[in-house]
Amino acid sequence: MTDAGGTTGAHSTEVVARLRNALHDRVDTSPDALTAARADKSGHASAGTPLAVVHAASIADVQATMRIAAETRTPVVPRGAGTGLAGGANTGTGEISLSLRSMDRILDVRPDDLLAVVEPGILNADLNAKLESHGVWWAPDPASRSISTVGGNIATGAGGLLCAKYGVVRDAVLALDVVLADGRLIHTGHRSVKGVTGLDLTSLFIGSEGVLGVVVGATLKLRRLAPGQVHTLAALFPDVRTAAAASAAVTAVGLQPSVMELMDATCLAAAHRLLHLAPPAGGAQLTVQTDGAASADEAAAIADVLRAAGGQVETARDQAEGERLLEIRRAMHPAMETLGTTLIEDVAVPRSRLAEMFDEIARVEREHGVVIPTVAHAGDGNLHPNFIFEGTEVPQKIWDAADDLFHAALRLGGTLTGEHGIGVLKSRWLAAELGDDQWQLQRSIKTVFDPLGILNPGKVFSE
Amino acid sequence: MTDAGGTTGAHSTEVVARLRNALHDRVDTSPDALTAARADKSGHASAGTPLAVVHAASIADVQATMRIAAETRTPVVPRGAGTGLAGGANTGTGEISLSLRSMDRILDVRPDDLLAVVEPGILNADLNAKLESHGVWWAPDPASRSISTVGGNIATGAGGLLCAKYGVVRDAVLALDVVLADGRLIHTGHRSVKGVTGLDLTSLFIGSEGVLGVVVGATLKLRRLAPGQVHTLAALFPDVRTAAAASAAVTAVGLQPSVMELMDATCLAAAHRLLHLAPPAGGAQLTVQTDGAASADEAAAIADVLRAAGGQVETARDQAEGERLLEIRRAMHPAMETLGTTLIEDVAVPRSRLAEMFDEIARVEREHGVVIPTVAHAGDGNLHPNFIFEGTEVPQKIWDAADDLFHAALRLGGTLTGEHGIGVLKSRWLAAELGDDQWQLQRSIKTVFDPLGILNPGKVFSE
Repeated sequence: MTDAGGTTGAHSTEVVARLRNALHDRVDTSPDALTAARADKSGHASAGTPLAVVHAASIADVQATMRIAAETRTPVVPRGAGTGLAGGANTGTGEISLSLRSMDRILDVRPDDLLAVVEPGILNADLNAKLESHGVWWAPDPASRSISTVGGNIATGAGGLLCAKYGVVRDAVLALDVVLADGRLIHTGHRSVKGVTGLDLTSLFIGSEGVLGVVVGATLKLRRLAPGQVHTLAALFPDVRTAAAASAAVTAVGLQPSVMELMDATCLAAAHRLLHLAPPAGGAQLTVQTDGAASADEAAAIADVLRAAGGQVETARDQAEGERLLEIRRAMHPAMETLGTTLIEDVAVPRSRLAEMFDEIARVEREHGVVIPTVAHAGDGNLHPNFIFEGTEVPQKIWDAADDLFHAALRLGGTLTGEHGIGVLKSRWLAAELGDDQWQLQRSIKTVFDPLGILNPGKVFSE
Repeated sequence: MTDAGGTTGAHSTEVVARLRNALHDRVDTSPDALTAARADKSGHASAGTPLAVVHAASIADVQATMRIAAETRTPVVPRGAGTGLAGGANTGTGEISLSLRSMDRILDVRPDDLLAVVEPGILNADLNAKLESHGVWWAPDPASRSISTVGGNIATGAGGLLCAKYGVVRDAVLALDVVLADGRLIHTGHRSVKGVTGLDLTSLFIGSEGVLGVVVGATLKLRRLAPGQVHTLAALFPDVRTAAAASAAVTAVGLQPSVMELMDATCLAAAHRLLHLAPPAGGAQLTVQTDGAASADEAAAIADVLRAAGGQVETARDQAEGERLLEIRRAMHPAMETLGTTLIEDVAVPRSRLAEMFDEIARVEREHGVVIPTVAHAGDGNLHPNFIFEGTEVPQKIWDAADDLFHAALRLGGTLTGEHGIGVLKSRWLAAELGDDQWQLQRSIKTVFDPLGILNPGKVFSE
């Protein structure tokens, strides 16, 4: 529907004229803006070119855009910073790209109540930089945190590196302001810690990828900055299965690192090459960080578990050395780009099944003749298999391998997507996880919010 | 609708016959069972008598009940242990009471993955007693935990005493098995820590009070039992406002007790009388508990804050003495019953507004000439004002005072109900909090799940 839907010709000229009349220079039809709105960071772009990009500066701008869209039956694709990895913000022919990026103010910070009220366009890292002086932080920390918006984090239900200890976006939002498909504004949730008034629409909007409404404000649940030093260690293992089993052993004995990242041999070697480091002395690496009052003791205990599980442990002597250890993990995305074009996948499994999931990845590599370097947020069982290929279009062979991998994750009690969302790239597998009955039910809920089908059509629920 | 809806006469005889044919002796029409199904622990009962109570023993039983109900357009009211405080499980004329209480098995415990799969009828305390040997626990701890079911906790989105530190039910459920209005079974959520596949129906069902479907299984997110001793202290204050301000001061400096309960003068005096203790030496009491590795240090730091805020602090020397201090708080419900009939309310406000909410309660007492003894989960801003009256029906004067109180909570950025739910008792205020647009939207979602209107009609969304 993304490309087939929307308006064309005379009608589209009229829609743009109406937008301009209402929103003046916040309506952008420059070729650069239109081209940029076609894609996110998934590597996938829509086939056509959007009608216009609206740079909303206020809730009223969003409402005006939605009213015009509803009246003219024009599809609208909400957009943050465009850093998504599932094509959820990609905008095609005849569609309006509604950018929330300029709405980036912090409206209120209440350290006593551990909450902040923000506009959706603020970058995650910018928000946290500003919260620091209040002694608080917002825990969701997607790897994209320096370039992704809070609104985008909410739209995808983002995760990150710290989730096993500090939770995901769903755990960190108290209330939302949402503009509906027809331009009306609603307020869900509350500022109190507890609240069970009616249905939990706040949770329903989190991770809904713009198909239910446009998030224009969020009341975030904050945490206090923990006292104490961060401790970092890295452990090399002969192979990825041993490393995965070691990470499961850490959580199984009740230790809770703040970060526990796993890189397989290909990732590790590529990152070392990119950073001009000597080749790694092992086939997989776990990078672990602890924080809080008991940080040093926990790091020592984790080192013991990792050694017992066959790891060769290096402990950072100070924060700077810790940063250098983590830098290898952070180099992963650019390192993958040196290998070819990448389709970054995002399955999650129960932590105890992590080693089995790596077995499945090895099987898929073997059976489909593809290379799938994989990193994992090992502390929470979330894996990012990177399918490497040549060219700009994902070849059928890669999709076949991905299909095999998705079904393997589901068999292990896992899910298609831990933190990136469905977007356009995974919509064809959605019913496989939900079942047809639940898929239909979710589709009907979408229709309640968006009877005209103008909110991010073709995303999540492909027909 | 509760009493007006449903089936009567010849039709009801046929419905019961069909139920008996499918479910045999799990269909109970004894007068005692029918009378018991009319009420929960809110003090409110439905006007009429149900058709039958079905004691479901399996998912198939629930499906059979819902199929017959859908075919005969008979309302069904799901029920756990009947300990609700908002009338959500009250069953009236022509309705089927569907009891999940007999489905009380633990199906799977995975300490490594910190999850358990349970049937809905298991009592919260029984579950936790059985989890203890695995070194794990399920954190939601409503005051009713020894008599309320996990399914009921999920249906109401229950809170409890430990929520400020350990979260509410919404934070502690990974996946649900739900029988829909027409008898189909769906599985929402996943066993992994992360997962954003499609809309978050798991959250939508939590706190939905039986109006969307019947929860027949739950995958619960567990926590490890924390090492270390629990420390308990109690602090007496001259008045409730000073105590409320002291509790806000504790959270404002970043200390996180596991329990922080506030009792006002009337509650405190009534509990002391009930327990045959000497009259209290103050006008309000905070009872505080800390746990975890730093428990002793935290208790000492909290004691300092409370003393600085005007409290007279008593620290328990051991666990037994700690239990005695908490016993006074636990005696609250029976103590209230000595004062008259009680309407237990459940507003919540941001923690920093707790003292102001107590001012509002004092104002409502004064202006309406009513007595409202109040306890609060002070750590999370959740208050239980107890409206005391004579007789069995809530008099209009009490409803007028409650109405005033609800609007005061909303003005302070709070909510009608922190943890008890809307049920029948608060449905007339629902739109005041949600706004008409959101109320309509939620009502439409209900219709997607229950097009025939047979699932707990008249609850939450009264017409």
